[in-house]
This record gives sequence, structure tokens and C-alpha cells, in this order.
Amino acid sequence: MAEAWSLAVRVYWEDTDAGGIVYHAAYLQFMERARTEWLRARGVDQVELRASARVQFAVVDMQIDWLRPARFDDLLTVTATLAKSGGASGTFRQEVRRLNEVLVQATVRVAALDADTLKPCRLPAAFVE
Amino acid sequence: MAEAWSLAVRVYWEDTDAGGIVYHAAYLQFMERARTEWLRARGVDQVELRASARVQFAVVDMQIDWLRPARFDDLLTVTATLAKSGGASGTFRQEVRRLNEVLVQATVRVAALDADTLKPCRLPAAFVE
Amino acid sequence: MAEAWSLAVRVYWEDTDAGGIVYHAAYLQFMERARTEWLRARGVDQVELRASARVQFAVVDMQIDWLRPARFDDLLTVTATLAKSGGASGTFRQEVRRLNEVLVQATVRVAALDADTLKPCRLPAAFVE
Amino acid sequence: MAEAWSLAVRVYWEDTDAGGIVYHAAYLQFMERARTEWLRARGVDQVELRASARVQFAVVDMQIDWLRPARFDDLLTVTATLAKSGGASGTFRQEVRRLNEVLVQATVRVAALDADTLKPCRLPAAFVE
Repeated sequence: MAEAWSLAVRVYWEDTDAGGIVYHAAYLQFMERARTEWLRARGVDQVELRASARVQFAVVDMQIDWLRPARFDDLLTVTATLAKSGGASGTFRQEVRRLNEVLVQATVRVAALDADTLKPCRLPAAFVE
Repeated sequence: MAEAWSLAVRVYWEDTDAGGIVYHAAYLQFMERARTEWLRARGVDQVELRASARVQFAVVDMQIDWLRPARFDDLLTVTATLAKSGGASGTFRQEVRRLNEVLVQATVRVAALDADTLKPCRLPAAFVE
Repeated sequence: MAEAWSLAVRVYWEDTDAGGIVYHAAYLQFMERARTEWLRARGVDQVELRASARVQFAVVDMQIDWLRPARFDDLLTVTATLAKSGGASGTFRQEVRRLNEVLVQATVRVAALDADTLKPCRLPAAFVE
Repeated sequence: MAEAWSLAVRVYWEDTDAGGIVYHAAYLQFMERARTEWLRARGVDQVELRASARVQFAVVDMQIDWLRPARFDDLLTVTATLAKSGGASGTFRQEVRRLNEVLVQATVRVAALDADTLKPCRLPAAFVE
């Protein structure tokens, strides 16, 4: 289960705010991009999954710590590690780093939903080992 | 056809960037909020329209001038005036103002699309007088 | 300390994603809008505070549960209640509701930062009773 | 002057809306990312430029056509070509493509601003040949 995945993310103007640093909610976007690439690396095509199996994902809860600010033009590394998985939801440990500095840490629980009813359903096999 | 509509929009942190001013693309969101309220004021419920008539809207082209910057916490007025309308598309004149100062001016063409095929279709009656 | 504040927020297209529901990070924006209005209601002008006292705010941690999805055109109520406050940080309890239904619940800790050094500093008096 | 630059951009959930396609304002973000990388490729470090020469950039006008929709998970190519440049502003021709299909076309004028006064100033040498 302890498989790590990381994605490089560049900070653009759209990610910053007038406080001069990256807007706090932008990190949730960065972390979702990393989970999307994690899924792709494990062979999950979300478009195909939704079209054929009518399964989509939703974030259900998150504990997040913003430790240090990122700034415009920073090159960040965003990790995703599946920490726990079972039934209808999986829990990721994620970090956003700049070189060796940890900027943001989060624990993110993601559920599989039936795309028609938005009710929980079984996670695809990619989440289970 | 020269019916004006205006919506008050407050600038929050999410709308700004590290240049200290409102991010240029945020004005497109403000202008779409004003068009949404313009539609509502003319009795168009977009959710109902999509569910029953399978019609949704898409912006097809825009000419936009950013004249002066807005800043965090500014209270803006966003106008929408239907300038032209016919067949499958309507053209709005829109402005974003702070008191009497015009900050942004745009001409925005919006088309009606069949929600299933994304092909152009006839505009709803609210656009036609 | 148990003072509640609520802000009405309309869901626009910009807040939704192709899953058909409100994008999970958009709720963080809604909750920050409510905290901004809470500050305003207590007489804090963030622009003035930053210019004169060189104080700005940053979200430092959050626990958030997305319970039920909001959709395009929903009219939401976003609350902010200061639950705890001391020294350099204050903790808010926040909810996003649609009528009587709770859609999102969060505990959000906000710190005061020196705008020049981004180091923690004393919270303004509005946070202390 | 006719130097082309292109950047690969992946579409994530954050870029889409409940219409099932990429939100129209998201393309402005994609195009700005490409201009940022165009600047970097020509040796312009925007952070350094702002700190040392007090110069920042602002988009002043744009003509944009949304021709075909992009969708979640599409891999797009975003181009930036400097079409004209002189004094305080430069004009880019930009396209967003999916393979050989042109989805969005825009003409974007960008000005150099004094970071303190936000008044127009001379473009950096990277814009002039």
C-alpha cells in the first residue's frame, strides 16, 4: 500500500493572491492533480471509468496543515501515497514540497461514487492490493 | 433590446493575484455571474432549461479591455446589456465598474447549445423581443 | 466567543466541475468569503490593517468534511463562528448549508502574520473578547 | 518577431464546469502559463524583474474565440507567438490545440507596468529584437 507518487507543479499567477503568496485553496487543486496522475499511473482512465462503470470520485474529508508559503514561479513537488483503502473509500497522505522543505501536509479521504446516484460504491481495483 | 442589468460583486482574496490586483481572468467570472442573474431576472432557470429542453449556454467569443485594476475588498458593479440577438447566439455589452469608474469593458457573444450534442440550437425566448 | 455570522453565497458555473457538482476546493473560497465578512462586521478593514499595522491573515490548518454535494444555482448559507482565540491564532467553526441541510463542516485555524516577514504576530483586538 | 512557443497543459477537474467541458475562463489561465514560460525561455525571471527593476506585466486587451470545447483529461498544446512589440506593450497570438484541432484562438496585448505606480513603463529587452 505504501506506494508514493509525485508530480511537479509550477506556481503561476492564477495560484497566488494579493497577500503575495499561493492562495490556500490552490494547494487542494495541486493535490488533486497529483491524485489524478497517481490514478493514471495505475492504469485508471477516469473518463473511461465514468463512461463504462459509472464510477466517479469525491473527496469526503481532509486534514490539512499549511506550514510555509509557496510563491509565484516556485517549482513544487506534490506527493500522493495511498495510506489505507477499503470498500468505498481510500485515504491518501499528501505533501507539497519545495526542494526539501515541506510546505503543506494533508490526509485526504476519497470515495468512489455511482455517477448517476452520487451514492458510495466499491472502489476500483487500482486502490486494492 | 437595450435592457441593462447590474450585479454587485465584492472582491475576495480568491480573485486577486500576487501583483496585488484582481487577476485578469476573474473578471470573466464576474461577468458570467451577471449574465446568470440577467437570465434569472428574465425567468430563465438554467437547471430547468437543461433538464427539460436540453439547452445550455457557451461563450463563443469576447473582446475585452482591462482599463484599470480592481483590488481586494472593492465593491464592483457588473452590468449586462443584451445588444443583439438572433437565431443561436446573443451578444452582450458588459462593464465592470467601481463607483463611476469603468474598470473593464467587454463584448461577449453567447450561444445556445444542445446539451447532448454540444451543437448550436435556437436561443430560448428570453433572448428574443 | 460564540458569535455566529452567516453569508449567502450563490453557486455559479465557475464553482462547479464536470462531475456535475461544486468543486471541493470551492467551499474553501466560500468559507473565506464568510470570514472576510465576519471581520468586516466586527469593524476590521483588512486593507487598512495591512497598510497601517502590517498585519495580514493566513489559514494554518483545517479539518473539513464534505457531507453532501451542492450544485449549480444553489443558494447556500455559509457560517463562521469564532470558537477559540488567543495570541497569534483564532479557530473558526464553519458550515455550508442549503436550507436546513448541512453540506460541509470545517474547523479552520487562522493566524495573524506580519505582512513583511510573514512571521506570526498578535491577533487584532476584533478576535479578543 | 515570429517566434513560436508552446506549452503542454493537462486538463484537471479544477478546469471543468458542470456543463461537462472546460470552463471558458480557464483558457485565459492556460494562455498566461504559456506566456510565463515564453518569458522564462527568453531569460526573463519575473520575480527578479519585479524585485530589481520594479516591472510587472498586465493583460490590457484580448480578442478570443472559443471554437471547440476541451474536456477533463485532455492534453492540450498552448502556443504563444509575439506578433508585435513596441514601447510599453506587446501583442501575442495564442492558440489552444488538441492534437491538430484548434480549440481556442486569441490575440492578447500585454503591457509592462511600474510595480509601484501601476503606470505603463518600457517593456524589457526580451520583447524587443
